[in-house]
Amino acid sequence: MSPVLRLPPAARAVVAGDRRALARLISAVEDRDPAAVASLKALYARTGRARIIGITGPLGVGKSTLINRLIELLRARGLKVGVVAIDPSSPFSGGSVLGDRIRIEKAQGDDGVFLRSMASRGHAGGVASATREVCRLLDAFGMDIILVETVGSGQVDVEIRDIASTSIVVLVPHLGDEVQTLKAGLFEIAEVFCVNKSDLPGAETATRDLSELAALGTDRDGWRPTVVPVSAQAGTGVETLWAAVEAHETFLNADGRRDRGERRRLAEEVVGLVRERVGRELTGSMDRDRDMGSLLDRVAARAIDPHSAADRLYRELRRSG
Amino acid sequence: MSPVLRLPPAARAVVAGDRRALARLISAVEDRDPAAVASLKALYARTGRARIIGITGPLGVGKSTLINRLIELLRARGLKVGVVAIDPSSPFSGGSVLGDRIRIEKAQGDDGVFLRSMASRGHAGGVASATREVCRLLDAFGMDIILVETVGSGQVDVEIRDIASTSIVVLVPHLGDEVQTLKAGLFEIAEVFCVNKSDLPGAETATRDLSELAALGTDRDGWRPTVVPVSAQAGTGVETLWAAVEAHETFLNADGRRDRGERRRLAEEVVGLVRERVGRELTGSMDRDRDMGSLLDRVAARAIDPHSAADRLYRELRRSG
Repeated sequence: MSPVLRLPPAARAVVAGDRRALARLISAVEDRDPAAVASLKALYARTGRARIIGITGPLGVGKSTLINRLIELLRARGLKVGVVAIDPSSPFSGGSVLGDRIRIEKAQGDDGVFLRSMASRGHAGGVASATREVCRLLDAFGMDIILVETVGSGQVDVEIRDIASTSIVVLVPHLGDEVQTLKAGLFEIAEVFCVNKSDLPGAETATRDLSELAALGTDRDGWRPTVVPVSAQAGTGVETLWAAVEAHETFLNADGRRDRGERRRLAEEVVGLVRERVGRELTGSMDRDRDMGSLLDRVAARAIDPHSAADRLYRELRRSG
Repeated sequence: MSPVLRLPPAARAVVAGDRRALARLISAVEDRDPAAVASLKALYARTGRARIIGITGPLGVGKSTLINRLIELLRARGLKVGVVAIDPSSPFSGGSVLGDRIRIEKAQGDDGVFLRSMASRGHAGGVASATREVCRLLDAFGMDIILVETVGSGQVDVEIRDIASTSIVVLVPHLGDEVQTLKAGLFEIAEVFCVNKSDLPGAETATRDLSELAALGTDRDGWRPTVVPVSAQAGTGVETLWAAVEAHETFLNADGRRDRGERRRLAEEVVGLVRERVGRELTGSMDRDRDMGSLLDRVAARAIDPHSAADRLYRELRRSG
């Protein structure tokens, strides 16, 4: 681990527990500020301790209330909690709608909680990459548990699953069309299923139906999904839900599963960073370089197809090193 | 344009109007079958004629009914219609839930219509890349208009916007949380807004509110969004909606806007293909190459950070050409 004094000032402030420095560094990461990359590099050795838990589900199932309850529970156990909310409303605006109001009340004035909402688009390199790095900053900042909240109806939540070690899907008793999806293989979706609003009619049936589906398979590690009825509003079932998360975390610790998963995720991350850099350099050279520009003109004129143009660019990339 | 006889057999069958060959080639494209790439390369010179129109909006706003109406209208005008539905239910399953049932009834037994639903994940290179190529196949097959349907609450619909020349967002009178998003800049979201279910209370207000927002700005081309009330169920407003799409298409034809947009999209596509190839090659070499494997071990041991490892891989990529 690098000595604190050799860290860039922004990174040093984060390690020292400066919340405003953390918030600024997160913004810099979102903007792909080169200075942020220096801090990320320097802080990497101080990460790997926090557990990242994904929480996903459609709008309106009560994810925010549940997160409030989990923060309560985790704080009562003396754990520091970071929350990263990937904001689904903002793919278009680039801003963060949910950031405008405080939905997570438990966080008010508690130094052991840090909240951040992030736009789900506009990140060079993608939201998954930005989220992964924001989680690292929260990890280096000293958070024990990082909850990553996404709205589950698209690509983003799947990408986030690759960052979290345990994923919770939150559902409500009346699943509707969701059931079709779930039948396709519960174990591919999450390790823990939370049937929220368990005081509503149909909750028992939904829990039983899901449990039956869960009995049909396991994920690639051999984990069979857990189904937990919860009423986040009333505060019931939350302890059982967290126990299910802990059971999966314990399962990961056995037989080198966590290390294998971590290595796989790191491989994807490193390759992703190289891809991103190749993209940046090529896009830049298309504007600057005359040969590149005329290659593109020929593609537009349909004199050469995009795949063949890409083959040529790839060869030139490897030749010009 | 390459002579038909020099096309790969699969591509030749598509040009000849063989629907089953088209369906097979689309599947091959989705699977990134190398043989499909050969067909795509060969068919590229026969593309560029079809207009690709994006149709996005939340679940339950009546997109399918609207698409049925648009098919009716376009067929009555003698236009051939392709529909690509990006299926939001399938990010987890890899299969296509909607594919199981026919939602678009107008297509039954009509040679001038071709439907395809695609999973929104599991495509090497991403759903946008696969969708773009499927649209090219439909274009080469002779479709005049290609409607690309997505569920609007995430990343996918934004990516699809980069493929379509005109995008329609479908909304219902009670916008709820959507309004916050829309305020952020209507013109960033779509060129045409369809307020569906215009027979419901609140439709006039919603149309007026949206029109007021639309008056506030234009997109980068200078287009001001159009707002059209529609009742897809009753079949009213659909002609006006299509007229709005045509107005935008006409707008694009002026002042070289379409060509500039096309060139920008092609640049992104070509760069994306190179990135994808770099990713494939590096992922492969991480498994095969001992030096690569040990680099990854050092990242996992936190002896080197992912950014520095990526820098090294990038240098090696360029040296080893």
